[in-house]
Amino acid sequence: MSIKTDVVIIGAGPAGLFQVFELGLLDIHAHVVDALPQVGGQCAELYPDKPIYDIPALPVCGAQELVDRLMEQIKPFAPEFHLGQTVTGLQRNEDGRFRLETSAGTVFDTATVILAAGLGAFQPRRLRVQGAEAWEHKNIHYRVTDPDRVAGRRIIILGGGDSALDWTLELHGKASHITLIHRREEYRAQPNSVKRMKALAAGNDLEEFQGNVRGVFEKDGAFGGLDVVDPDDERHHIEADEVYVFWGLTPNLGPIADWGLELEKRQIAVDTECFQTSESGIFAVGDINTYPGKKKLILSGFHEAALAAFAVQKHLHPEKKARLQYTTTSPIMHRRLGVEP
Amino acid sequence: MSIKTDVVIIGAGPAGLFQVFELGLLDIHAHVVDALPQVGGQCAELYPDKPIYDIPALPVCGAQELVDRLMEQIKPFAPEFHLGQTVTGLQRNEDGRFRLETSAGTVFDTATVILAAGLGAFQPRRLRVQGAEAWEHKNIHYRVTDPDRVAGRRIIILGGGDSALDWTLELHGKASHITLIHRREEYRAQPNSVKRMKALAAGNDLEEFQGNVRGVFEKDGAFGGLDVVDPDDERHHIEADEVYVFWGLTPNLGPIADWGLELEKRQIAVDTECFQTSESGIFAVGDINTYPGKKKLILSGFHEAALAAFAVQKHLHPEKKARLQYTTTSPIMHRRLGVEP
Repeated sequence: MSIKTDVVIIGAGPAGLFQVFELGLLDIHAHVVDALPQVGGQCAELYPDKPIYDIPALPVCGAQELVDRLMEQIKPFAPEFHLGQTVTGLQRNEDGRFRLETSAGTVFDTATVILAAGLGAFQPRRLRVQGAEAWEHKNIHYRVTDPDRVAGRRIIILGGGDSALDWTLELHGKASHITLIHRREEYRAQPNSVKRMKALAAGNDLEEFQGNVRGVFEKDGAFGGLDVVDPDDERHHIEADEVYVFWGLTPNLGPIADWGLELEKRQIAVDTECFQTSESGIFAVGDINTYPGKKKLILSGFHEAALAAFAVQKHLHPEKKARLQYTTTSPIMHRRLGVEP
Repeated sequence: MSIKTDVVIIGAGPAGLFQVFELGLLDIHAHVVDALPQVGGQCAELYPDKPIYDIPALPVCGAQELVDRLMEQIKPFAPEFHLGQTVTGLQRNEDGRFRLETSAGTVFDTATVILAAGLGAFQPRRLRVQGAEAWEHKNIHYRVTDPDRVAGRRIIILGGGDSALDWTLELHGKASHITLIHRREEYRAQPNSVKRMKALAAGNDLEEFQGNVRGVFEKDGAFGGLDVVDPDDERHHIEADEVYVFWGLTPNLGPIADWGLELEKRQIAVDTECFQTSESGIFAVGDINTYPGKKKLILSGFHEAALAAFAVQKHLHPEKKARLQYTTTSPIMHRRLGVEP
């Protein structure tokens, strides 16, 4: 049995959650699918307590607080969440609607699909050298979930971008020793971060190393460190307890990749009128999309979700004249929100 | 002496205030000019206490609260406000910069101008019949500042759109009698509001009247009411203590109108990449602008301000490569915001 619906939102991060709200204001009920077992997306997953300062009218807001606030805001619209599930199939039916299937066997018959998977639609570029796979998620990590985990340990950080440099600066002083390994001499990170790192590297507990990783070595059956080749082709055994790889992200669109949606720089291209992809009825909002001027800001995801909601309404009811109604003054909005102002 | 600056923002409503924030993150200092004597724009002026429900992550927020929150958020960037002043002159200098002058005699030499005047750039369409002018702002009003003012009084409401209908419903029961006068039989308001009004008009304290206003009459030297001609050309004396005119808005762009900026439906046309007008260096954000898909939502103004800030940065430093830095992780952002996360 499939669930018949007007819209399935893929991704329960800030953009996906606010998408529920904007659809709700237009009286459109949403189902939300997310790969993670809880709502909030990467935002709450990666840095729940780190403050965000650029959410309009919220001078300081933790990522988890942002998610909690959005959940409170969408409560009147009672979205149905399907968590811990990835999309495994997406096909267009003869009637123009979509059949969307998830890893949990949930099947939707939906008029529209909104991709709001953000960074969740991407995966970290992996360390693919002999022997690495067995240590992944044990001693080789692609993100820092708990900075205290490195306390007193020797770590290697791989990468030369902002993530690698930011975490080097953040974990310096916590880890007993850091080796920052980058394949080139130049870094792609903020000049200021590079400067700070170079200053710290003058001390004993941070070392910069230029080279390419060639393998993993063990020590007494445990993880031992990485084999690295320097620019002079000399091989080095670099010992470490933990390795953090920050080599950026690579898209992981799953079955959506098979759709041949128009991409630009590995993001899904949308128009700025509707935030529709190159495929009618499939929309994309938040960090997953791109268009001229695009900045990956949460506040832009909110705007995109609002305009996408109007476009979904038009897709569902092409004949109906849409009117913008204000939540401050419209009795219809008040009824939908369940408020008595 | 003129004030030399990178940017002058015209309008201190939510979009203008958040514009200060987004420019501040990019280390660009702003001057803000507004015709009103206080910040907040029409939003705080028209309905300070009415709740807004669609500011992302703020499930309920009063208009004045929204303004207070934005003022708190922009504090680190110490914008300079020039309030109670309208723009009286705007010319491009030979060097491509602008000379902007206000009614208070303030003169700016600025690289860019951001129009964020929203509804403030418009004025209510006035009741232009003989004798009306003398009663304006005494007994003839273009907005309701204090609903309690109508208590026990006979009022006339002019108009057939949402404002006219919403206020008819809102003031019904407060005023002792309401005559709703519209020139046509059909209303442009929400069907649901019209239905509710028609139901109330079955009672004694609300009357619907179709006709055109031809004049004002006095009674014992005081305001008496309106002379109205019905569709059969019959003249009616409609007595009232107060008249509320809701005939919509008409643009009042002042010297900006002389610039010949491209307009669409009386809004300033912008591109969605930069939110620049047809004139290089002049940007427009918030309710004053238009583009395909535009909705007059505060949250869209926030997005537009963010992208306009990057465009202003590029205008000021065309050679510099702009990088998006996150307030959550970037030490540069933390320094500019004056926070220690």
